[in-house]
Amino acid sequence: MKAVIIGSGNVATNLARALTAAGVEIIQVYSHTLGNAAALAGTIGAKATDKLDDIVTGADFYIISVKDDAIANVVESIPDNGALWVHTSGSTPIDVFHGRRKHFGVFYPMQSFSKQIETDFADVPFFIEADSDDTEHAITSVARMLSRRVFKATSEQRRRLHIAAVFACNFANHLWTIAGDVLQEAGLPFDVMLPLIRTTVDKLNRLTPAESQTGPAMRRDSKIMQSHIDMLDDGKKLIYTILSDDIMKRHEQD
Amino acid sequence: MKAVIIGSGNVATNLARALTAAGVEIIQVYSHTLGNAAALAGTIGAKATDKLDDIVTGADFYIISVKDDAIANVVESIPDNGALWVHTSGSTPIDVFHGRRKHFGVFYPMQSFSKQIETDFADVPFFIEADSDDTEHAITSVARMLSRRVFKATSEQRRRLHIAAVFACNFANHLWTIAGDVLQEAGLPFDVMLPLIRTTVDKLNRLTPAESQTGPAMRRDSKIMQSHIDMLDDGKKLIYTILSDDIMKRHEQD
Repeated sequence: MKAVIIGSGNVATNLARALTAAGVEIIQVYSHTLGNAAALAGTIGAKATDKLDDIVTGADFYIISVKDDAIANVVESIPDNGALWVHTSGSTPIDVFHGRRKHFGVFYPMQSFSKQIETDFADVPFFIEADSDDTEHAITSVARMLSRRVFKATSEQRRRLHIAAVFACNFANHLWTIAGDVLQEAGLPFDVMLPLIRTTVDKLNRLTPAESQTGPAMRRDSKIMQSHIDMLDDGKKLIYTILSDDIMKRHEQD
Repeated sequence: MKAVIIGSGNVATNLARALTAAGVEIIQVYSHTLGNAAALAGTIGAKATDKLDDIVTGADFYIISVKDDAIANVVESIPDNGALWVHTSGSTPIDVFHGRRKHFGVFYPMQSFSKQIETDFADVPFFIEADSDDTEHAITSVARMLSRRVFKATSEQRRRLHIAAVFACNFANHLWTIAGDVLQEAGLPFDVMLPLIRTTVDKLNRLTPAESQTGPAMRRDSKIMQSHIDMLDDGKKLIYTILSDDIMKRHEQD
């Protein structure tokens, strides 16, 4: 199978390297900055270009891995060649291809990538959407070359995935910022909290988060909760109260 | 050094085993359930008792590792023998010993323990408080036998540590429950989120949580935030809004 990667960012770089290692021949890398295209292309034996007009037409699989707001422009700027075209975005609906490609789909690896750290794709969940069963089958086969965890997901499901990731990662990370502020007030470094955070995450290998919930709200220990609230500033007080109330409500039936 | 462990729960069990491995001779284990005392004592070559009156007086170091609301009773029920007495609680002030012991302190390992899984103490932070510099030095020496990370912390600092842990672990875990609910609505299992959660935690090895914050609120992407809020029920809407607002406020200056 011959593939072309359009993009040279974190996702494109990790995908291109992993696909090459899995035996896919990547023949070309596009980036609007030639140096970036060349940097990636050089590591995988591909050619580099910074011109959408120069993208080769003879590949089987075209992977558009550029910023969300640039995907439509890429699709519109390159004429269809009848090959299979995918984008790798969690947020862009499959509609972006409608009327502009014959065979198309979404090939979304849900992970946070960086060029500096090589991602092991084996456990990265891929979410696949396609224009037809045949295309779905073809995209799924490629995903299975990289990962054990390949799911079908509609654009609507991907939107919910994104919301879930905001709660699970963006918001959880912000709570760690708040914890760091509280520790700083106590003259302690944030990293004293890391072993406990890691253990909390490790528990998710064996239990659902609802099953492993602990703490004053879970125990309905109103004396401790009040003593905590009394020590917090208004912003943290509000977050403490809302989350404690929600824990008590969610676990009412337990 | 000869030690006695009063308690046979998750903390007592892990501490007793780790101290034994580090060369401390634990001569006796107390539990109000003899079977539990014997189960732990048997693994470390100690004697077991279920009677506070039978606790031996000849040890150097007495570790009270029972539920918070039972600590005062243990201290009051056993007469002082002039040895060094500590409790292992994050929440109980050092005052519980005042007037009842000559040499005393707090020896608090901040981690979530379980009897089934042996804890590696090397990175577990210990927080030490003591009646005097000499006692502090003695307790710190014991903590250093187990861990590289030993801190002094007053009872007030431990209270703040607990608040920080509620945000960093209890509340973060609840956000994972919410994420699981959102995924379930989309027909997806919770564990698709685990690789992304692990990566979010791994970033904390290199960056502060404030530095590694990402997501729609961080980007001030109000279109995406509104589209998420529109898809959530009232309880989740409130949490989404409050946390997004707090992220925008916290990172105003960035």
